[in-house]
Amino acid sequence: MRAVQITAFGGPEVVTVREVPDPEPGPGQILIDVDRCGVNFADTLLRENAYLAGATLPLIPGIEVVGRTRDGRRVAALIEHGGYAERAAISRDGAFPVPGDLDDTAALALLAQGLTAWWLINRTTSVQPGESVVVHAAAGGVGSLAVQLAKISGAGRVIATASTPAKRDLALSLGADAAVDPGAGDLTKALIEANEGRPVDAVLEMIGGPVTGRSIAALAPFGRLAFYGMAGQVEPDPVSPRALQRTSATVSGFWLANALQRPQVLRAAYTEMAALVARGRLRVIHGGDHPMSEVRRAHEAMSARRTTGKLVLDPRT
Amino acid sequence: MRAVQITAFGGPEVVTVREVPDPEPGPGQILIDVDRCGVNFADTLLRENAYLAGATLPLIPGIEVVGRTRDGRRVAALIEHGGYAERAAISRDGAFPVPGDLDDTAALALLAQGLTAWWLINRTTSVQPGESVVVHAAAGGVGSLAVQLAKISGAGRVIATASTPAKRDLALSLGADAAVDPGAGDLTKALIEANEGRPVDAVLEMIGGPVTGRSIAALAPFGRLAFYGMAGQVEPDPVSPRALQRTSATVSGFWLANALQRPQVLRAAYTEMAALVARGRLRVIHGGDHPMSEVRRAHEAMSARRTTGKLVLDPRT
Repeated sequence: MRAVQITAFGGPEVVTVREVPDPEPGPGQILIDVDRCGVNFADTLLRENAYLAGATLPLIPGIEVVGRTRDGRRVAALIEHGGYAERAAISRDGAFPVPGDLDDTAALALLAQGLTAWWLINRTTSVQPGESVVVHAAAGGVGSLAVQLAKISGAGRVIATASTPAKRDLALSLGADAAVDPGAGDLTKALIEANEGRPVDAVLEMIGGPVTGRSIAALAPFGRLAFYGMAGQVEPDPVSPRALQRTSATVSGFWLANALQRPQVLRAAYTEMAALVARGRLRVIHGGDHPMSEVRRAHEAMSARRTTGKLVLDPRT
Repeated sequence: MRAVQITAFGGPEVVTVREVPDPEPGPGQILIDVDRCGVNFADTLLRENAYLAGATLPLIPGIEVVGRTRDGRRVAALIEHGGYAERAAISRDGAFPVPGDLDDTAALALLAQGLTAWWLINRTTSVQPGESVVVHAAAGGVGSLAVQLAKISGAGRVIATASTPAKRDLALSLGADAAVDPGAGDLTKALIEANEGRPVDAVLEMIGGPVTGRSIAALAPFGRLAFYGMAGQVEPDPVSPRALQRTSATVSGFWLANALQRPQVLRAAYTEMAALVARGRLRVIHGGDHPMSEVRRAHEAMSARRTTGKLVLDPRT
């Protein structure tokens, strides 16, 4: 089959299409024909060997696929790797049914990004009606869905941060009540001002560096910060438990790999989000549908942060 | 009225009984006649000016009282200070009705200690049926109730830590499934072994120093540690958000002062615990009923960690 196989870590030049053997399904797995696979920022980190879970070579990147089982069912699945390929072995438990009205790009956007956004809002920070929620990188894959899911959960005020006016406009169009430039001045003060002078109840944080600590400083009593990525590739300052005690605040980590151990929860969340998309209540931003032969350009754009919306590859072209 | 008034910070010698004016109830407050007031470890920290909140002199220590309103209702209340006295001004919203079958010591034990234990189990860590819970200082005021409340919440396995064999025996008699000496060797390993080889789901931590980090290292995926005190008076190491991400773990602070802003939740929790005591499902350890004139000896015993169970003072003697 055709697939993108990496044999050395490095820049976008290491992702090239090759002919490789079909995957062998392991115990509890099934083989599917891949219609589209998703491209994630984490794929570019993995390519550089900078991802949280290390990797061993050679490997086929790609953690999300949508396609058809041998008996004709349309399914979407998260996988450990192997998505940039014409066929993929997926876990039977982790094969989520895809309704007919959900297009391939949306079906993929609801996987790593949708399930992360859903878990952050509904589990990690457990947003309650009326609460204020800060969504960093709000025009990103996770952020754009998290802004909407926070509103659906009844959040009283959603404050988006994004680095450009166009991205802030996108976040506002998705329902954010305010949009903040994270690079302009005192971030703690800016978040509190955007929340009409009050400290905030929840923060979804995937930037790292000073953004983490400045966001924690903006938390209200019983506020929660979920740290789920480090796009800036700078470690945040460590957090003093004693300082958290003063406001009964919470800092949680989140990594989707841990959630994969709870496939029933993920399946229910996926079904819920698919229904929201069908009813027009949850909007997926399409970022481009590319032939797999153009994978290198897709990685270049992703690494340079030039993309907005869900980027997908067609492994058959 | 008779009261203990501190005019200088220091050791147990600064707590002496004096004659002082009755308190003036502020807006939303009522005056009660105090039958008993509780002695807390936090009172000894306040006396040394080592408490989280700081303090201004002169002040009457004591954050919990049980007594009677002018119209004869028996109530218990948490207050900011002023408990070691014959009369106290309490918030009308924060006056919890005390059922007739709850003795004064139990009525006081369910205030700062009971409500802290309740919040840690039901809110901060939200213990789910079947989960494993580590309770540090399990023979202490909060710990002894937390062990029992964890079991009542359906915890699968409760692991108590305490520094002496007698305290560990007490924790086991309260329903703990295992008891660990926190000073013996590798604490992370000891907690996991006590949980039959598995990492743990929740930890209630009030010791500080290395105990905090070694407990975090014992957390399972999606595990939660609640840091609610620093009895050892040594700051724990700060926590890396990146390290939390690896296991989707959570570190929360908890300070009861923040919970006082939610009196309806506290009232419901108090009523629930009072009913559990009445039904014999929750046991309060009595630590001694002393005349207020012996307050200094009570503080000496508390500071030296010689007490077990709820210590109360009678302000009329």
